[in-house]
Amino acid sequence: MASGFRGRQADVADLVARARDGQARAVARLISLVEDASPQLREVAASLAPHTGHAQVIGLTGSPGVGKSTSTSALVQAYRAAGQRVGVLAIDPSSPFSGGALLGDRVRMQEHATDSGVFIRSMATRGHLGGLSWATPQALRVLDAAGFDIVLVETVGVGQSEVEVVSLADSTLVLLAPGMGDGIQAAKAGILEVADVFVVNKADRDGADTTVRELKHMISLGRREQLGPSWRVPVVKTVASRGEGVGDVVAAIAAHREWTTAHGELERRRIVRASAEIEAIALQTLRDRMGSFTGSTALEALASDVVDGTTDPYVAADELVGQLTT
Amino acid sequence: MASGFRGRQADVADLVARARDGQARAVARLISLVEDASPQLREVAASLAPHTGHAQVIGLTGSPGVGKSTSTSALVQAYRAAGQRVGVLAIDPSSPFSGGALLGDRVRMQEHATDSGVFIRSMATRGHLGGLSWATPQALRVLDAAGFDIVLVETVGVGQSEVEVVSLADSTLVLLAPGMGDGIQAAKAGILEVADVFVVNKADRDGADTTVRELKHMISLGRREQLGPSWRVPVVKTVASRGEGVGDVVAAIAAHREWTTAHGELERRRIVRASAEIEAIALQTLRDRMGSFTGSTALEALASDVVDGTTDPYVAADELVGQLTT
Repeated sequence: MASGFRGRQADVADLVARARDGQARAVARLISLVEDASPQLREVAASLAPHTGHAQVIGLTGSPGVGKSTSTSALVQAYRAAGQRVGVLAIDPSSPFSGGALLGDRVRMQEHATDSGVFIRSMATRGHLGGLSWATPQALRVLDAAGFDIVLVETVGVGQSEVEVVSLADSTLVLLAPGMGDGIQAAKAGILEVADVFVVNKADRDGADTTVRELKHMISLGRREQLGPSWRVPVVKTVASRGEGVGDVVAAIAAHREWTTAHGELERRRIVRASAEIEAIALQTLRDRMGSFTGSTALEALASDVVDGTTDPYVAADELVGQLTT
Repeated sequence: MASGFRGRQADVADLVARARDGQARAVARLISLVEDASPQLREVAASLAPHTGHAQVIGLTGSPGVGKSTSTSALVQAYRAAGQRVGVLAIDPSSPFSGGALLGDRVRMQEHATDSGVFIRSMATRGHLGGLSWATPQALRVLDAAGFDIVLVETVGVGQSEVEVVSLADSTLVLLAPGMGDGIQAAKAGILEVADVFVVNKADRDGADTTVRELKHMISLGRREQLGPSWRVPVVKTVASRGEGVGDVVAAIAAHREWTTAHGELERRRIVRASAEIEAIALQTLRDRMGSFTGSTALEALASDVVDGTTDPYVAADELVGQLTT
């Protein structure tokens, strides 16, 4: 049944109209069409394009255990209270949105399940055609065109692809928690530099002020290397499970939005995001073509020569590229 | 000084000879040459090719906190005791190898620092040309050609790229620890299916037997879907910090090696690994070319049209690909 439904030709114009009208099933269907690289993918992309550019995209990342899902839930609630429609893309394997976490968290998220102003989608993180960098912008584009005011993209701040995806948001929140030992440590490995706003969650725990102080110190060191006007990354304390400080996070995001708009940074980021999206699609097209070669220039035949040591991977790659561009 | 050193033309044949002679500095220099995509990259790749294919590549992954670095260290010790030369590639941002973890762990690793039969290299996980999928196989190829018998590739089991890299090993160990709450949970999101051997570390803790039982149950379910002969994934208990069970892990790896050799699976995996490597190099070449277009087919110009909604990313990608292949 399910595959029969998916295989059916969709009336794309009708789906887009219904998605823009707030129908969650139409939104979900459109995301499936782009995620599964259906034959109608291009028709969907063309239909969405004129409606995009409205949504404010907020990335949210942090190590496992810092309270990403609780924070996302609290932000959803805050934006809903302000009358905004909110979409959530969860690409964190440990997130309750994507089905990975404990029952308690999952129950907590269900408070949004009956709210038609909220749409939550978990993204497959593995085994996906082209991976995260391909699928996430596509789904984001659907939510944008469907008229969501806010789109939250939640990822765990550990993997390379995951951090890259979240760094392409209009504003990126990096969450930490005190007393995790590896909080700032892990963050140092790459997620600190993508932060527009730091959130120290679980701020009622011992060590919260130390974490805040360390972050502020680090930020002040980073600023010395900057030339020209730069955004001063704020550090906000929250206890997301009780809603404390969530208003401050919303205010910090709004201030960042204002700053990026005034300095041309918002436009710049969106161009970077679209570039990444175009590049990922182009590379997927090229990968498909390279995978279709047969005979001695087939990828597998070349790989076999590399395994035997009779050629090296650069010479083999030249063969592939040469075949592609002639 | 450092950049001057790097910029100097290297005598590649001499470096390869010295690396094969066991000189750590020559190995390090070769890895830098391939990692930095130096002009001599192709010369290095060609010089390495005839010497590759000897090393046994072991991937090791797991969530933060399961004891990956302690286990890696224990495995290094075990293989050294058996007279094997061991290379370690650490691409885990929370690993002491790559400088991310606490002082205690880092000290523990230093027991290998003076052993010339051990070479440890941390891989940059971000901001790298082409990323992990590009850099790791290159470094691995250097260690292989330098004559290391065993190469351990350690990554955190969370990110998409990280799991992909480790899944390309000859044998992949997935580590779990009992009582972590999200142990099997997080693993479910993608790392379980890449396991050739499960290691339940910290097995002196409460819940170890439950974790073992759950894993075995899961494995038995998975087997029903298989056709033909399949490897029965063993579950090994360890307390890596005391060296307990490490011999069992080594035995399980050896058994897997024997099985994959007998069933043609080792050859198949190496072809898959070489394919991924060739493809990554080819895609990087194509990406560089696409990035060099100017005028209206420049990536940024196309991206600007996508941001404005005047075109969609698929049409823009077609423009790029068309430009590339004419």
